Amino acid sequence: MSSIGIFDSGVGGVTVLKALREKFPDENFIYLADTARLPYGAKSISTIHQYLERAITFFSDFDLKAIVVACNSASVAYLSKPIKSQVPILNVIEPGASKAVQVSNSGRIGVLGTRATVLSEAYKKAIHKLKPEFEVFQQACPLLVPLVEEGWLEDPVTNLIVNRYISQLSTKNIDTLVLGCTHYPALRKSIANSAGSAIQLVDSAEVLTIQLEMIIKNSKTPKSAGIHIYASDFSPRLEETLHLLLKPHRYDSLETIDL
Amino acid sequence: MSSIGIFDSGVGGVTVLKALREKFPDENFIYLADTARLPYGAKSISTIHQYLERAITFFSDFDLKAIVVACNSASVAYLSKPIKSQVPILNVIEPGASKAVQVSNSGRIGVLGTRATVLSEAYKKAIHKLKPEFEVFQQACPLLVPLVEEGWLEDPVTNLIVNRYISQLSTKNIDTLVLGCTHYPALRKSIANSAGSAIQLVDSAEVLTIQLEMIIKNSKTPKSAGIHIYASDFSPRLEETLHLLLKPHRYDSLETIDL
Repeated sequence: MSSIGIFDSGVGGVTVLKALREKFPDENFIYLADTARLPYGAKSISTIHQYLERAITFFSDFDLKAIVVACNSASVAYLSKPIKSQVPILNVIEPGASKAVQVSNSGRIGVLGTRATVLSEAYKKAIHKLKPEFEVFQQACPLLVPLVEEGWLEDPVTNLIVNRYISQLSTKNIDTLVLGCTHYPALRKSIANSAGSAIQLVDSAEVLTIQLEMIIKNSKTPKSAGIHIYASDFSPRLEETLHLLLKPHRYDSLETIDL
Repeated sequence: MSSIGIFDSGVGGVTVLKALREKFPDENFIYLADTARLPYGAKSISTIHQYLERAITFFSDFDLKAIVVACNSASVAYLSKPIKSQVPILNVIEPGASKAVQVSNSGRIGVLGTRATVLSEAYKKAIHKLKPEFEVFQQACPLLVPLVEEGWLEDPVTNLIVNRYISQLSTKNIDTLVLGCTHYPALRKSIANSAGSAIQLVDSAEVLTIQLEMIIKNSKTPKSAGIHIYASDFSPRLEETLHLLLKPHRYDSLETIDL
């Protein structure tokens, strides 16, 4: 049964899983959440790289057609030192950068991310690889991940915090804003309101689906189209948050594993 | 050189370190932060117990007079299954509970904590061991740790979030509120404002100093009175947050170690 593996530090990548489930209803998904070590956003790249290697090893027990690293911090670690694998490994940085370059007219792009993603300048580098003349303005938003994990998705406090982060970019005249963390699409409404209609939001998942489409075309369709979740720790509220971020879809199994 | 070991998942325990440094200016402190695995608050007790065991093993290389588990989630794990050690191990739950019981007149006590601490009901159990007739009302506050880590200590957004959490306890007629996480004393001003002057705040560090005083009396004074920090990951902003929480005191060394 040839499945698609998705890896994230926690539940943020479920926004990617949801987008892929909607685009590919016949596919089977294996979602691995390293909840014992989350969040990755404040950890060093070399530590995150070790965790990613363990995840790739975990996936080697499955028959996969692709592995999606649905975590920006882990994607940064991957791009800093790619890991050998017989299965194609997709990251979320390069698709986000390529989409941003495609939609920006002014060549002035904002990026929201965790502190680790911002410090790595991964989006800046990926955008400059495509368009060296573009200007990239980064903003670290460390509170957005805990707000999503808390489930305060549409909330005045969330709007206030989102607004504070985005106002840091207000003098930069950007026309494009990259949601540089897979948790952020869950706050899309609040971010769109703060950014205003003149700024276009970019979500990596949109480009990922195009990359995956090509892989899926050349592969066999699995017998069952389920969603199977594996987590390295059964943390309180895990099920609740999974349901919240995945709805109206549902997962078929949830298992705790050592990673 | 007989030192005092302090263990926390991250920088929250620095509020305890600061209180102990002020009370015991002649002592030498070894502070271990498991920054590679923080935060513990959303992880399961059995996982946290494994991490605590590694910390105790780390401390066995030092000549210590006491180990303070300055992390509520790790203290919960410790109380659930104490670990053998030749050095006395102090936790932050029992002192907090004993102080709360001592200051409460109405017998109605509130507890603010991480989700793991609240789910464990550790304070409830520790208070009921002392006063079975007391009523304990718990409130999980998952956003407070990231707010402290972000350094938004005195901030309208922080006040709003603190206020939302504390308002959940407003109908309970409590006269005592336990700061059930070592990060929370950093938000003491905001919490005191929200709670109002009729509610007395309880910080475990106050009782810990009394317990430590007895141990210190019977032990030798170290040759130097430093603060040495060990962290399992050199995360971005670690130094900055350490300075912010420790000031006006300073640490003498900061080293990254494998844990």
